[in-house]
Amino acid sequence: MQAEIITIGDEILIGQIVDTNSAFISKALNKIGVSVYQITSVQDDLEHITKALQEAEANADIIIITGGLGPTKDDITKRTICAYFNDTLVQDEAVLANIKHIWKTYVKQPLAKVNIDQALVPSKAQVLMNTHGSAPGMWLEKNGKVFISLPGVPYEMKAIMETHVMPKLRATFQFPYIKHVTLLTYGLGESSLAARIEDWEDNLPDFIKLAYLPGLGRVRLRLSAKSINKNGVEAALEAEVKKVLPLISDIFVGFESDESIEAMLGKQLTALHKTVCTAESCTGGKIAQLFTKNAGASAFFKGSVVSYATSAKIDVLQVPQTLIDKHTVVSAPVAECMAQHALNLFGTDYAIATTGNAGPEKGDSDAEIGTVFIAIATKERVYSEEFSLGNHRTKVVMKAVNKAFEMLQKEILKK
Amino acid sequence: MQAEIITIGDEILIGQIVDTNSAFISKALNKIGVSVYQITSVQDDLEHITKALQEAEANADIIIITGGLGPTKDDITKRTICAYFNDTLVQDEAVLANIKHIWKTYVKQPLAKVNIDQALVPSKAQVLMNTHGSAPGMWLEKNGKVFISLPGVPYEMKAIMETHVMPKLRATFQFPYIKHVTLLTYGLGESSLAARIEDWEDNLPDFIKLAYLPGLGRVRLRLSAKSINKNGVEAALEAEVKKVLPLISDIFVGFESDESIEAMLGKQLTALHKTVCTAESCTGGKIAQLFTKNAGASAFFKGSVVSYATSAKIDVLQVPQTLIDKHTVVSAPVAECMAQHALNLFGTDYAIATTGNAGPEKGDSDAEIGTVFIAIATKERVYSEEFSLGNHRTKVVMKAVNKAFEMLQKEILKK
Repeated sequence: MQAEIITIGDEILIGQIVDTNSAFISKALNKIGVSVYQITSVQDDLEHITKALQEAEANADIIIITGGLGPTKDDITKRTICAYFNDTLVQDEAVLANIKHIWKTYVKQPLAKVNIDQALVPSKAQVLMNTHGSAPGMWLEKNGKVFISLPGVPYEMKAIMETHVMPKLRATFQFPYIKHVTLLTYGLGESSLAARIEDWEDNLPDFIKLAYLPGLGRVRLRLSAKSINKNGVEAALEAEVKKVLPLISDIFVGFESDESIEAMLGKQLTALHKTVCTAESCTGGKIAQLFTKNAGASAFFKGSVVSYATSAKIDVLQVPQTLIDKHTVVSAPVAECMAQHALNLFGTDYAIATTGNAGPEKGDSDAEIGTVFIAIATKERVYSEEFSLGNHRTKVVMKAVNKAFEMLQKEILKK
Repeated sequence: MQAEIITIGDEILIGQIVDTNSAFISKALNKIGVSVYQITSVQDDLEHITKALQEAEANADIIIITGGLGPTKDDITKRTICAYFNDTLVQDEAVLANIKHIWKTYVKQPLAKVNIDQALVPSKAQVLMNTHGSAPGMWLEKNGKVFISLPGVPYEMKAIMETHVMPKLRATFQFPYIKHVTLLTYGLGESSLAARIEDWEDNLPDFIKLAYLPGLGRVRLRLSAKSINKNGVEAALEAEVKKVLPLISDIFVGFESDESIEAMLGKQLTALHKTVCTAESCTGGKIAQLFTKNAGASAFFKGSVVSYATSAKIDVLQVPQTLIDKHTVVSAPVAECMAQHALNLFGTDYAIATTGNAGPEKGDSDAEIGTVFIAIATKERVYSEEFSLGNHRTKVVMKAVNKAFEMLQKEILKK
């Protein structure tokens, strides 16, 4: 079964925003065994949208459209869809009630005619309620094909996808089974890796595809299998993984999952009734921000001191000036002292501390750009590791954050 | 003049990566007056890529293709382009020398046949040298139309765009002039704003388009003008801005540049030799992380206490337990106390504090989900504002962060 995604909006085509909706929708569809044939981004233009709809209808069984549902004159998706289906707009009372509720509760401004008009939907459409905004999602069918129109605001689109679209698709179609397995490798370039596993790759069964996804010192090998037979697919994939693993045993790090490492850590800590805090210098609060990104963080995360300036390390984290003078601010003893004091200050089971130089220029230390010390403190011990993480500021910070999560993961597994 | 962008790669269509290349290329093309008619993401598939090339050729004068140039079997863009141009592949000596140099200097592994094969290019192509990787960019012409193939790795693509593609496009074509002006407004919804400026919008000249870009408590109004006459465009845009400004004087914050508000704040604070710190509860370190994202943050940012747990507010920020008992943890007095203590702790000129309930469930407070108090402390005063920011966790946090930056901006402007 194939889908196409059409994202609508001049702001995409002038590069003002990056279209993240397509990736979210593609991932969700792939999980239920629907391949996305094409993603097309078009202008807020009736003719252009119509042409995209016609082409998508020719290729796909499911057509998902995002964007262009706002209340203003440049948003013309609804009118275009209505014309495409030879339909007329009718007022949906449930949508109107939702809009009135949102206006009363959050917007607290008079309801304008353009807002009331957002309750107009094509008469043939089934409404997919948008509880986060005023533009409803819409589901239309034509010759066994499904057209789904969603608002372009990512969190509104995501909520409607999860609450309405995915369950409704599962209820409407019988899907083939698609499974991806991604093997994470470090330390060998894409082409050397390809040369090494060439024989294996050439003998993959037809329904299993291999892709190389290189980036930042690692290559991900993605195996994708698709079939109507779930058991057959899983067994075949497993067999291929078993064949390739001995060929890459020196560079294979693990299997990649959809869940972020911080989300996994959060779940582990919560299950263990353990808590963590951070003392961050070069990572600038990024670890805290990632821990608190997901709901339920208060169960395991107590807080952080972002001690960006050296004075903050002394004043807030009580790192002794003498220790800094002796070892410099980017050093193992300072990292360990930060972690130890954070642990005491927040009264947690674990503390993570980072101190380093992310560049592009040297800061309050003579340490080389890319040098980062990460410390872990527990009630029993405190220790640190030194890393050399390159010379690109954003990458240094993100690599340090990943290393910190990796160290905490190892520490938790010691239990 | 119109362009189309084709991004190639199964990893885009299964949602494993977000296509950021299109936005970068669109922005670059728009700046020189080229409109992007459509962005199409297709699979690593010869027929599909060929179809996309045919359709793009029908609509556009410039066709930019990214991805599918790697050394492995799933990368088939080069073969497809070669077939599309009825061409044969020939070895390019300069590309081969570049590949050998990269392998010797960075990769330090034996050069495999697949790497040497990356020096093969269609005989009709002009090579656009890729100094960051082994896959060269290619420039081909056909019936006055230009086809440009670039690697999919973002930093390789960007370097080739800047070094080769843009200068070569400017030398090849005469471009019309496009200018965008974006007005940033806070505090009025998209539809109320649209109703207020309807008359003005209806009377805009044909060559000026208006778009509403709403998001997280603000609406950006983007005026786009396109003409062969640069002076005429600038004067007309200026005249329209002059007409609309009096209509939105109460909500207009400024013109948007490519720079983020935190980067602008950082520059202002550095120029004034002023410093800031944060005490963050519901924003979880996001404000600190954004302040430290850009190089040079140590000039104005001292640090943050992320007091996520109530105990951290008491232990680290010394918010009195009695104050919390009396007003609850999500309250104006607690926000102000947090800001005041942070100011003292870090010894800064400004402190920002946030406390609120981001949802999805109520935390250590009975406050409604979405209720956030933000306080600003200076050496002279401390004050706070209460906000109701909806019921979506990520959105509540990002809105609170934006409001915090806005409040600091206003405070700095008081000087």
